[in-house]
Amino acid sequence: MGDNKKPLILVTNDDGITSLGIRELISVMKSIGEVVVVAPDKPQSGTGHSITLEHPLRLKKINEDGNHVEYSCSGTPVDCVKLAVNVVMHKKPDLLVSGVNHGSNSSINVIYSGTMSAAMEGALEGIPSFGISLLDYAPDADFSAAKIYAKTIAENVLKDGVPRGTCLNVNIPALSKKNIKGVKVCRQANGNWLEEFDERKDPYGNKYYWLTGVFKNYDKGADTDEWALKNGYVSVVPVQYDLTAHDTISVLNQWSYE
Amino acid sequence: MGDNKKPLILVTNDDGITSLGIRELISVMKSIGEVVVVAPDKPQSGTGHSITLEHPLRLKKINEDGNHVEYSCSGTPVDCVKLAVNVVMHKKPDLLVSGVNHGSNSSINVIYSGTMSAAMEGALEGIPSFGISLLDYAPDADFSAAKIYAKTIAENVLKDGVPRGTCLNVNIPALSKKNIKGVKVCRQANGNWLEEFDERKDPYGNKYYWLTGVFKNYDKGADTDEWALKNGYVSVVPVQYDLTAHDTISVLNQWSYE
Repeated sequence: MGDNKKPLILVTNDDGITSLGIRELISVMKSIGEVVVVAPDKPQSGTGHSITLEHPLRLKKINEDGNHVEYSCSGTPVDCVKLAVNVVMHKKPDLLVSGVNHGSNSSINVIYSGTMSAAMEGALEGIPSFGISLLDYAPDADFSAAKIYAKTIAENVLKDGVPRGTCLNVNIPALSKKNIKGVKVCRQANGNWLEEFDERKDPYGNKYYWLTGVFKNYDKGADTDEWALKNGYVSVVPVQYDLTAHDTISVLNQWSYE
Repeated sequence: MGDNKKPLILVTNDDGITSLGIRELISVMKSIGEVVVVAPDKPQSGTGHSITLEHPLRLKKINEDGNHVEYSCSGTPVDCVKLAVNVVMHKKPDLLVSGVNHGSNSSINVIYSGTMSAAMEGALEGIPSFGISLLDYAPDADFSAAKIYAKTIAENVLKDGVPRGTCLNVNIPALSKKNIKGVKVCRQANGNWLEEFDERKDPYGNKYYWLTGVFKNYDKGADTDEWALKNGYVSVVPVQYDLTAHDTISVLNQWSYE
């Protein structure tokens, strides 16, 4: 590893280490600092804040050059962060960036997203962290605008950190840089998925199900990530791991528990 | 299924359908209403808000009597909730209860817990929901106090609902009912896990890792779940799925994004 004055940057994702989104992110982060990549060896979309307890974890060094090293990991994105800090680096990086995800992690997707859970795990460990996602699921999506904003936001985070107890959820509309209107700091839109299970029969006559569905935004606010993205802006939502609904404590204190 | 005037209660967990905690919970919920169980066919601890996208899901009816029916599911706790609502019940239950978990889901454990993620998924779908956990990992733990509080809280939730956008995270100290001092409505303590990976070699000479660690509570507050549990109280934390750190939006608006 090279110049010790450069920031140390941990990169991970949930689409897996071979996906285009993380390859593009690695190339940008190498222009800023020393890069350590620990990312899943297979797709881990939708794994949320899952950790692996029932199986042992494997790490494999797959690439190394002057200012970066890469490990593939058999576990989830959160496992990758824990292994990176405790086994690979033996210290905390200056920055954690997760992504670039193929597909949106706006609104309620933040809760299902392995990409965002990796960033959340970074925040929990006191590492300035953000996740970044492009609103394009295509394996060969155009990440050029995402790369520009990844760099800008990384530089901001390296300079100022992120507010304590939070990480950032950055989503990029599927537009060229010149058609993006700017950046909006937003709240998470109130939306969810309406599920439709695709029921099939296997060759032996037994039923099985694929989870599918459509996303529904119930939120009319112009201060949400959904609004920003729909209107051509990059959305930045500060995400916290204190899940307490503080405002409702007084309501629950009125109940009788005996 | 029996009397339609009884509340319809969905029961799930993350320890798997055969664990003692869910068996005890089912027996309590049968005393209140009609019970549908959709729970994992194997342990799913630490799976967080994971959903299954890479494999198809299987459901298997394993038990049925006058006022309850049980399905085991190949997926995660969140998958179980989605399948229960959309494939098994074709409607939303009046109450979702997840647990009784073997082991604490207080403080930051809420974020890793499949048990709590199932309750969160219920909340997202507009179902009054709570998760309940006993501070005892033993497979043959004594659930007698947990059963009493599960019933009391279920009755409260069926009567009053839970505050919009939240579910409840209930933790029970490993004490007999007479030694429990009461119930405290709390906030999530600020704590996390200090990881220690257990490195081993397989019979072929290749390294692998088991995730282990110790929980560290950084929070001195007497209004937290950790404080309540340590002092002999049941803790009830209202948990929300809006992860926005609203207070920090103004800070991030001071950044330059160009």
